[in-house]
Amino acid sequence: VLLVSGGIGPTEDDLTRQALAAVMGEPLLPSSEWLAELEAFFRKVNRPMSPLNRVQAMIPRGARMIFNSAGTAAGIHETLSNGGRRCEVFVMPGVPKEMKIMFARDVLPRLTEIGAGAVILSRTLHTFGLGESAVAEKLGPLMTRGRNPSVGTTVSGGIVSLRINANFPSRARAASELEESEVACRRALGPLIFGQDDETLQGVLAKMVRDAGKTIATAESCTGGLLAKMLTDVPGSSAFFQQGWITYSNAAKTKLLSVPPALIEQHGAVSEPVAAAMATAAATLAGASFGIGISGIAGPDGGTPAKPVGTVCIALHVGARQSCAVRTFVLSGDREMIRDRSAKMALTLLRFDLLGQPLPF
Amino acid sequence: VLLVSGGIGPTEDDLTRQALAAVMGEPLLPSSEWLAELEAFFRKVNRPMSPLNRVQAMIPRGARMIFNSAGTAAGIHETLSNGGRRCEVFVMPGVPKEMKIMFARDVLPRLTEIGAGAVILSRTLHTFGLGESAVAEKLGPLMTRGRNPSVGTTVSGGIVSLRINANFPSRARAASELEESEVACRRALGPLIFGQDDETLQGVLAKMVRDAGKTIATAESCTGGLLAKMLTDVPGSSAFFQQGWITYSNAAKTKLLSVPPALIEQHGAVSEPVAAAMATAAATLAGASFGIGISGIAGPDGGTPAKPVGTVCIALHVGARQSCAVRTFVLSGDREMIRDRSAKMALTLLRFDLLGQPLPF
Repeated sequence: VLLVSGGIGPTEDDLTRQALAAVMGEPLLPSSEWLAELEAFFRKVNRPMSPLNRVQAMIPRGARMIFNSAGTAAGIHETLSNGGRRCEVFVMPGVPKEMKIMFARDVLPRLTEIGAGAVILSRTLHTFGLGESAVAEKLGPLMTRGRNPSVGTTVSGGIVSLRINANFPSRARAASELEESEVACRRALGPLIFGQDDETLQGVLAKMVRDAGKTIATAESCTGGLLAKMLTDVPGSSAFFQQGWITYSNAAKTKLLSVPPALIEQHGAVSEPVAAAMATAAATLAGASFGIGISGIAGPDGGTPAKPVGTVCIALHVGARQSCAVRTFVLSGDREMIRDRSAKMALTLLRFDLLGQPLPF
Repeated sequence: VLLVSGGIGPTEDDLTRQALAAVMGEPLLPSSEWLAELEAFFRKVNRPMSPLNRVQAMIPRGARMIFNSAGTAAGIHETLSNGGRRCEVFVMPGVPKEMKIMFARDVLPRLTEIGAGAVILSRTLHTFGLGESAVAEKLGPLMTRGRNPSVGTTVSGGIVSLRINANFPSRARAASELEESEVACRRALGPLIFGQDDETLQGVLAKMVRDAGKTIATAESCTGGLLAKMLTDVPGSSAFFQQGWITYSNAAKTKLLSVPPALIEQHGAVSEPVAAAMATAAATLAGASFGIGISGIAGPDGGTPAKPVGTVCIALHVGARQSCAVRTFVLSGDREMIRDRSAKMALTLLRFDLLGQPLPF
């Protein structure tokens, strides 16, 4: 099996379809089926179709066109034979989103048909809040090299993920071994694990909030809207999120959220009392079950010895208890990382409150 | 030269340092210099240092430790010799951010010393608003395959970028040829090009707004804070951005921004009059030079035949002219893409207003 990704765009340096046609010894012909799709697409978005786009409907004679539901380049599937050997060739777009959709929809089902022999089943578990070393330490011997199922960790955007791979001769055995290792990982990490596989922190949280029939309002300073953006990443977020404030300046904190200027003067804008006042005001003004307030120093400037860059105060106002919990973190990384981790930490504070569990760090 | 990225994390599956030590035939020893750095780092973030982190200070005896200013794994540099042949080996972290910083700071300067022969100079120009095919068409023969300097296009997050590579025997020739091709590309695309190389749309816009001494306020519905997040991506953004509103529900639009319920009822929340009312209210309430209002259907639900998913109304209120311009776009892609393109389109509307030029699409 040969999987090719990329080189089927409309420009002169896109040469994958030409290469496949050369190997097949066949000319490139337009797929009338895909041309019709393209024309309909450009009509829909009300833009003229460039002649270059017609190139994206060209496939070698005799090959199968693969429908692209997320872009303008058709995929190509061809079975090459040489003597007694066969090779299935799948050409997919290079744009990751388009490639993934095409792979899941068309290529993977065919690969499963072709496949035989050993079965590898995988599961990914996601955590947020502890570093990779601390997570690995909690997992202990589960991560021993050579173990089957294997357990490895990766980090992306502060999310430490565990990848469990079970490699066994039968599907049933692989499934039961995978299950057993997953249970062991979950026992070792407890509620630090927020989700698995394609689940996101915001997606998991959104479901919890919606299921609980609660609502959230946000008041952000250093994250500048990122927390609200994450909450509204989730389709249907209007069920639990109706409004938020971005109060970047001190004056805006006072004007929009009635944070007393004296409080800011006494403790500084980046302080637990100010974050708490923001959270409480957001919940109260919005009539929401929860209010989250974030104030911090994302840098690169603005740090002091007492409050270095990365200092972030996050407050969670819980309407039902009429109480507000505040935590201060010192996050590392650049501006983008500090803002991202601040928003994820805020989601995590709320998640543990909904779980009724203390934060494990 | 061998550049290795990754496998120097703290866990059992990180084996790059062991592999290099095996090739060198040397034991791994802790770098006392890096251990001291690590200890200082964990003191600063006030977390205990895991014994696993000590592994990240191990380097083969005789190799040079490369300072990692963005993470906990030390890089490694070693010159391998075999007979008369030498190979410079640089081991960098796998985390892209850490790798890039280490590459730029330590590895690249050494490669430049080592290098000789042909010179390749590159420039990347960024555009937003037109598709890849439309950009390619405007560039015409500049993109001909085999041309030197070569001009190719790539797309990432809706940003269509031109990469110009000039490959010539001397640096002077490469520089003058690169310059000439860049001028030709800029002539073909005009103000569609918003920046070059590492510049971002928000970074370029922030500089323009700051230089003009203007301020921006935002009122977002479907983008849910993403526009404000982009504006505050830029260090020092407090100079031009002080506050924003996220009015996700109709009630919030009315309560926070005084959008008349009758206007919403008559035209719908996703309509030019409502986006305009949001933009004007944001500018007025904040006392800002510009107000941006965004209302749209990010999907996957909520589309209608008249207003399909991807329909986004973006309004720009200009205080100095006491006028508000509104445009409706039908953007393609999934929820994440529609929200991202909406925010970038809003930045683009503002950019063209600051340039005093009409939008070229």
